[in-house]
Amino acid sequence: MTSPYVRLAELSIAPEQLDAFRDLLAEEIASSVALEPGVLALHAVSLEAEPHQVRLLEVYADRQAYEAHLNTPHFLHYKRATSGMVVSLRLIDANPLALAAKRDFPARFA
Amino acid sequence: MTSPYVRLAELSIAPEQLDAFRDLLAEEIASSVALEPGVLALHAVSLEAEPHQVRLLEVYADRQAYEAHLNTPHFLHYKRATSGMVVSLRLIDANPLALAAKRDFPARFA
Repeated sequence: MTSPYVRLAELSIAPEQLDAFRDLLAEEIASSVALEPGVLALHAVSLEAEPHQVRLLEVYADRQAYEAHLNTPHFLHYKRATSGMVVSLRLIDANPLALAAKRDFPARFA
Repeated sequence: MTSPYVRLAELSIAPEQLDAFRDLLAEEIASSVALEPGVLALHAVSLEAEPHQVRLLEVYADRQAYEAHLNTPHFLHYKRATSGMVVSLRLIDANPLALAAKRDFPARFA
């Protein structure tokens, strides 16, 4: 398969700002996937036992697409708006082993 | 959105068995998404800095779909075949915040 550029992110959010953070993140993700040809998938979850712990799987067409993403208005807005909410952020480079989904998977949660 | 049942998994693989593990995992993921209506997405990556560290994001239609998955022949085969390869396994319940992807995302890596 063509190998995309994949990253994981582990974020810890200030608990009292979690609702606001969630809205900003969801908006940023929707904009990125809708507007950027090289943003293939952005999946964000929170841990059941520790909801302020957020995990992201980010799939870009290539590294250039990721770097372009960092300079988009919607990403810069998200970064500014959430800067006081994010207690810690760990970015982890990764390599895909298998990325499989139902044909209509994204549509089910759009 | 309809809320699916989401899990993360963190696996540490015996480094000398990593290639064999990868093949078995890729086969199991392909079978699960192809054969099980309730397996919506299975995404597996390895960490760039520690390739024997594997991370999975698993999305099922609901909890029943996950439990059915555990009893399928392809999953049981994978579990048996990899039991000596997996040094540690941590399963983490999670809740989706945003699951967004390009319409043709799965197809690009089929």
